[in-house]
Amino acid sequence: MKIIIIGGGLVGSLAAVFLGQKGHEVHLYEYRQDPRGTTLNEGRSINLALSMRGRTALRAVGLEKIVLQKAIPMDGRMIHKTDGTTSSITYDPVLKNCIYSVGRKHLNELLLDEAENSPNVHLHFGKKLLKVNVSSGTITLKVPDGATEEVKGDLIIGADGAHSAVRRDLMKATPVTFSQTYIDHGYLELSIPPENNHMMAPNHLHIWPRGKFMMIALPNLDGSWTVTLFMPLSSFTTLRATKDILGFFQTHFSDAVELIGADRLVRTFMANEASHLVSIKCSKYHYGSKVVIIGDAAHAMVPFFGQGMNAGFEDCTILNDLLHNHDYSVNRALELFSIKRNPDAEAICDLAMYNYIEMRDLVNRKSFIIRKTVDNMLYRIVGSKWVPLYQSVTFTNMNYNQCLKNKKRQDSVIRKASLFALAAGTVSVAVFLLPKIMTGHSPLPNDFCSAHG
Amino acid sequence: MKIIIIGGGLVGSLAAVFLGQKGHEVHLYEYRQDPRGTTLNEGRSINLALSMRGRTALRAVGLEKIVLQKAIPMDGRMIHKTDGTTSSITYDPVLKNCIYSVGRKHLNELLLDEAENSPNVHLHFGKKLLKVNVSSGTITLKVPDGATEEVKGDLIIGADGAHSAVRRDLMKATPVTFSQTYIDHGYLELSIPPENNHMMAPNHLHIWPRGKFMMIALPNLDGSWTVTLFMPLSSFTTLRATKDILGFFQTHFSDAVELIGADRLVRTFMANEASHLVSIKCSKYHYGSKVVIIGDAAHAMVPFFGQGMNAGFEDCTILNDLLHNHDYSVNRALELFSIKRNPDAEAICDLAMYNYIEMRDLVNRKSFIIRKTVDNMLYRIVGSKWVPLYQSVTFTNMNYNQCLKNKKRQDSVIRKASLFALAAGTVSVAVFLLPKIMTGHSPLPNDFCSAHG
Repeated sequence: MKIIIIGGGLVGSLAAVFLGQKGHEVHLYEYRQDPRGTTLNEGRSINLALSMRGRTALRAVGLEKIVLQKAIPMDGRMIHKTDGTTSSITYDPVLKNCIYSVGRKHLNELLLDEAENSPNVHLHFGKKLLKVNVSSGTITLKVPDGATEEVKGDLIIGADGAHSAVRRDLMKATPVTFSQTYIDHGYLELSIPPENNHMMAPNHLHIWPRGKFMMIALPNLDGSWTVTLFMPLSSFTTLRATKDILGFFQTHFSDAVELIGADRLVRTFMANEASHLVSIKCSKYHYGSKVVIIGDAAHAMVPFFGQGMNAGFEDCTILNDLLHNHDYSVNRALELFSIKRNPDAEAICDLAMYNYIEMRDLVNRKSFIIRKTVDNMLYRIVGSKWVPLYQSVTFTNMNYNQCLKNKKRQDSVIRKASLFALAAGTVSVAVFLLPKIMTGHSPLPNDFCSAHG
Repeated sequence: MKIIIIGGGLVGSLAAVFLGQKGHEVHLYEYRQDPRGTTLNEGRSINLALSMRGRTALRAVGLEKIVLQKAIPMDGRMIHKTDGTTSSITYDPVLKNCIYSVGRKHLNELLLDEAENSPNVHLHFGKKLLKVNVSSGTITLKVPDGATEEVKGDLIIGADGAHSAVRRDLMKATPVTFSQTYIDHGYLELSIPPENNHMMAPNHLHIWPRGKFMMIALPNLDGSWTVTLFMPLSSFTTLRATKDILGFFQTHFSDAVELIGADRLVRTFMANEASHLVSIKCSKYHYGSKVVIIGDAAHAMVPFFGQGMNAGFEDCTILNDLLHNHDYSVNRALELFSIKRNPDAEAICDLAMYNYIEMRDLVNRKSFIIRKTVDNMLYRIVGSKWVPLYQSVTFTNMNYNQCLKNKKRQDSVIRKASLFALAAGTVSVAVFLLPKIMTGHSPLPNDFCSAHG
């Protein structure tokens, strides 16, 4: 098959690797320049958390080991309290799984290199998609000299991100139920320089949860940390002057001022606008046997479960399996991809939205620690029958929708068990007290009894 | 102000009338040809139900009376049962309000004529919007000879329908939370010829509710009726052959076969595809002081509450009021339009979706009639404190969101009252029975008592 991939980011380049290895003629078009050999970082997050679904996809193309060699394991969350004290919450005390901090640019370059290893994969940079004719499978590109170029393929894969042009043209051609939700919160990236690395507990994802907002930090290979502040967009706009920025940080993130450095903090704050966060759902990912969208183009999510890249990589695994299943025509494979993947993609979009509340607020509460303890105890005892939500999403390949359903079932069991425990407690007290009261041998203090005659 | 209106349908042409009367320089662009003097009907519904909000807007520009002269009053629903019997349910037994069937083409032409009465209103047909530059307020049009034309205005109003190009460019310029939902049901328009008019009860909106699907009919001035069949798209695809179509109608709409005529029925069915139904919500309708969207462009809804046109006309009233309120700059007026109108628009979109279930199913149940009776009794007794949902949406200018809130409150009151009635009933029975049982004078049959010793 001649396959056209639009988008040379993480998901597009992994798709090229998958399909190149299967011997297809693959043409990947990316509107940016080749990132290899540039130092540019175009406003995308610098590092990401790689977990099981991403690893499974990389393993399938033989790249898992090489990626993990340059990844930093994170076994738990390190919670920074307002007073500067910290405490660690392990991600998976039962099976000891961890997540990995990987550099976006490094991973992208590695995937592009690997894609080019197949002689049948052709990478085209600096060519921007203008239009997709979804019924004929023809794309129109704007090439660097300003002219346009038409290319026809048997299959067009749109891996062109949240603002996908492929999706736009897919939606023009067929009725698609679609939603995009901008949340009220935005984000700004800061950084801790390598010289302050010794002040950060290694092998953790650091979180400063503050109820209505939060900050997180992931480690980089050079010893630096990428710090991201998430908060209401309206709060960002109130922080314009040096004294406001420093005042805000000294109040809420006092330890971070030293880590980042006051000067660097203010400079970054003043030079950048907060970025928006969008969640995108789409009811159907394909058109006939000609077009399919994957990754953020199909299901962009807010970044709070660390699953955006992992879900996109899992799309590649699933689509590759369906396309090479001899029971299915291409048409049927794409149709099954839409049907099978949609409930899972919508589930992880919802879970990611919910996890923001957990990360910025709940993680700080006693009830969160108690629930995690109960969950992990049950996980230890009954094993795969009680995989806690975080673990099932992050450390298994279980369908996201199944993870969500299990979580709801677990919540209901815990709710009923708590009620039962409360009732049992009440009954025990009653059984203990009543006979004594009836026989006059009250276990209650004398003055209590006497007051009641 | 120089105001550009995109779209010369019902809402765009009414907006032109409003703003022309205020003395603005108005340029309206419509990609179709001038409908006046053509017989074309481009796949849009032929007639619509005009109710209070639409009348209020028409009254404000002095057109209500002339519109009502060529409108057909409908006081109630005429329900057609499967056996061919019919029964009428009055819309507003308390205040005797009715809705009006109006012809889309007639109303559109009347509004265009009225707009042109202002020397400062200019209508441009056959010019298609290609692009809006929302920050400069410049539009690019494709003119009939294929060339492009640029026009700049102080304000651009997008009244260009559910697939609005103005909205598309607004969404490119600023983060907008947006959703479009295609429902599983589609529709097909049929018609009853004037010669069968005598077989239809006049002054009613006719409904054939069938649970999972339904058919409705609205009268036209020439004695014909426009009939619309709504049902799952998957069901339409099973009706391809003459015998299947006739079999389906004879089973479910036996009286309609005679009304429409078997030949005409099959012919229309075979010559047309079912159309899709979409519901669209959008979080923000404006950009700075330059662009605003109204009508279906801002809030397309499914047609089951008969409020699409009425809500669009109400947009014109509200926007006109805000723009000419001297307390507000244009920027502020548009901002207020977004803030004020969004919850109401989303409420009517939801209500319209819900009303499909009511029309195709509930309307056929005893509980529906009982609830309507209770609602109308309370309406008669407590007046404006208990305006039933249908009445508040259709016969008042109450904010849609308030209508929805009232309905929820009413449901809750009725639920509690029913529970109370049930409890009171149980208590009465107990009070009546218990003393007799205790004293041996049971009011129960003797054999019942003897069986229990």
